[in-house]
Amino acid sequence: MIRVVGLGPGDAELLTSQAAQALEWAEVVVGYKGYIELIAPETLQGKEVVATGMTGEVPRSVAALDHAAAGKRTVVVGSGDAGVYGLAGLVMELAVTQEAWCNIEIEVVPGIPAVIAAAALLGAPLTHDFAVVSLSDLLTPWEVIEKRLLMGAQADFVLALYNPRSKKRDWQLGRAREIILEHRDPTTPVGVVRNAYRPDQEAVLTSLRELDIQLVDMFTILLIGNSHSKVLHGRLVTPRGYFDKYEIDTDS
Amino acid sequence: MIRVVGLGPGDAELLTSQAAQALEWAEVVVGYKGYIELIAPETLQGKEVVATGMTGEVPRSVAALDHAAAGKRTVVVGSGDAGVYGLAGLVMELAVTQEAWCNIEIEVVPGIPAVIAAAALLGAPLTHDFAVVSLSDLLTPWEVIEKRLLMGAQADFVLALYNPRSKKRDWQLGRAREIILEHRDPTTPVGVVRNAYRPDQEAVLTSLRELDIQLVDMFTILLIGNSHSKVLHGRLVTPRGYFDKYEIDTDS
Repeated sequence: MIRVVGLGPGDAELLTSQAAQALEWAEVVVGYKGYIELIAPETLQGKEVVATGMTGEVPRSVAALDHAAAGKRTVVVGSGDAGVYGLAGLVMELAVTQEAWCNIEIEVVPGIPAVIAAAALLGAPLTHDFAVVSLSDLLTPWEVIEKRLLMGAQADFVLALYNPRSKKRDWQLGRAREIILEHRDPTTPVGVVRNAYRPDQEAVLTSLRELDIQLVDMFTILLIGNSHSKVLHGRLVTPRGYFDKYEIDTDS
Repeated sequence: MIRVVGLGPGDAELLTSQAAQALEWAEVVVGYKGYIELIAPETLQGKEVVATGMTGEVPRSVAALDHAAAGKRTVVVGSGDAGVYGLAGLVMELAVTQEAWCNIEIEVVPGIPAVIAAAALLGAPLTHDFAVVSLSDLLTPWEVIEKRLLMGAQADFVLALYNPRSKKRDWQLGRAREIILEHRDPTTPVGVVRNAYRPDQEAVLTSLRELDIQLVDMFTILLIGNSHSKVLHGRLVTPRGYFDKYEIDTDS
C-alpha cells in the first residue's frame, strides 16, 4: 500500500494527525530531499528513506511503487497538499502501466496547500472565487498558461500563482503581470508570501504595479486580488459581499 | 484577540494541532451550530459557546468582535478553511467599522478546505491548474458566476463547485452544466463528494452528461475534470504532464 501524504507548509503544528499517523505507519518514506528535511528526524528513525533531488519525480514514484509491490508500507511525502501539483497523480498514472503495480492500494492523505497557508498569513484573500495557476512551463505549454491567466483575470478570479519564478525561469512572471493588467487595475493588491510557516517566513503586500519581480523566487507564492479585494489594516481581504447585500448596522 | 479557525472537513484526524491549540486557548467559541457540533464536547467544556443558525454570519461576527473587545480570548470556527468562503474576511471587514474593534488582533488558523478533502477522496484531480467557484447567488450576482464558469471552462481549468444546490437554489447547477458543456466534452469525468470525512461520506464518479443533479445537495462538492482528466482504476486523475514530456520507461 502507498499513502501519498501532504505535509502542509512545513510547520509541525500544521500537520494533520492523519499525516502524522501515516508517517508512523510507514516502513519506507519516499520524497524530494527538501521535503524529507521537514520531517522530524526521530519520526524517520528505523525507516528506509528514499530522498532524491528535484525533477526526480518519475524515479521517486517508480521507487515507491516498487517498494509497495514488494509488500512494504510506503509513504510518498510532498509539501502542502499531496494532490495540488503533487505526486499523487503521477503515482496513480504510473500504477496502471505495470501488472505488478496495478493492484497496489493508493491512498491520498490531504494536507494544507501552500495557497491556503499563504492566504492565512496575508488575511482573507480567498473569501470569493479563485483560480490557481502554476507559471512553470516545464510540463505545460506556455500558451495554455497564458490563456488561463487571461481568462482568470477577465473573470475576476482572485489568482494564486505557484512556481512564479526560478533562476532558469525568469521572464514568466513579468509576462503574467502584463496579461493580468489587461483586465485588472495596476493598484490591485498583491500578496507575496515566501517560506510560509517555515523559518525566514515573509509575507508582504504590494500591488500589481509595484510588485518587484526580482524579489520573487521558487519558494514564493503570489496572491493577486480581484477587483473588490482591498487592504484593511495591513491585511488583504476579498469581500464575500455581505456589505453589498445587507445594510450592516454595526452600532450594537 | 480573535482567532478564526478552520476545522477542516470535520474528522478530528484532519484537524491541525494549531487549530486544536486555538480551541483549547479560547474562552469564547463562536460559530454556526452545525460546525460547533463537529467539535468534541469535552473541548468546549467551561467555555462560552455562541452557536447560531445559518445566514447568521453578520451577527456571529459582531458577537465575536464584541467578546474580543471585552478582552475575551475568542475563536470563530468554520468548516474547511476559515478563509475559503469563510468568516475570516467578514470579521476583518467589520473590524474596521468601529473604533472599539479596530485594534483587535485577528489571526487566521488555516484548515484543510473542502475542495482538498474531496480531491483526496476522488484520487488526484487537482494535479493541474484549477478554479473554485461557488454557485450560491445569494451574495454574488448570477452573471458574475456565469462568466467565471464560462471562462473557467474555456481556459480548461479543473473546476471545483461549492454550494452547488440547495432546496431553494435548485436550477443553478443545471445551468452551470450547460455553460461548461459549451467548452468541455460530455464525457468529461465529474467527481461528486458528499459529507467528505464525515459520517455518511459518499464519493462517486460520473460524467458531465450522466451527472444526476437531483442527488446533489448543499453538503456536496463537485470536481469537474479538465480536458485531460481521466478515470484510472476508479480514481479521477488529472495528469501533470510527465507522460507527454518524457518517454517514461517503466521497465525497471
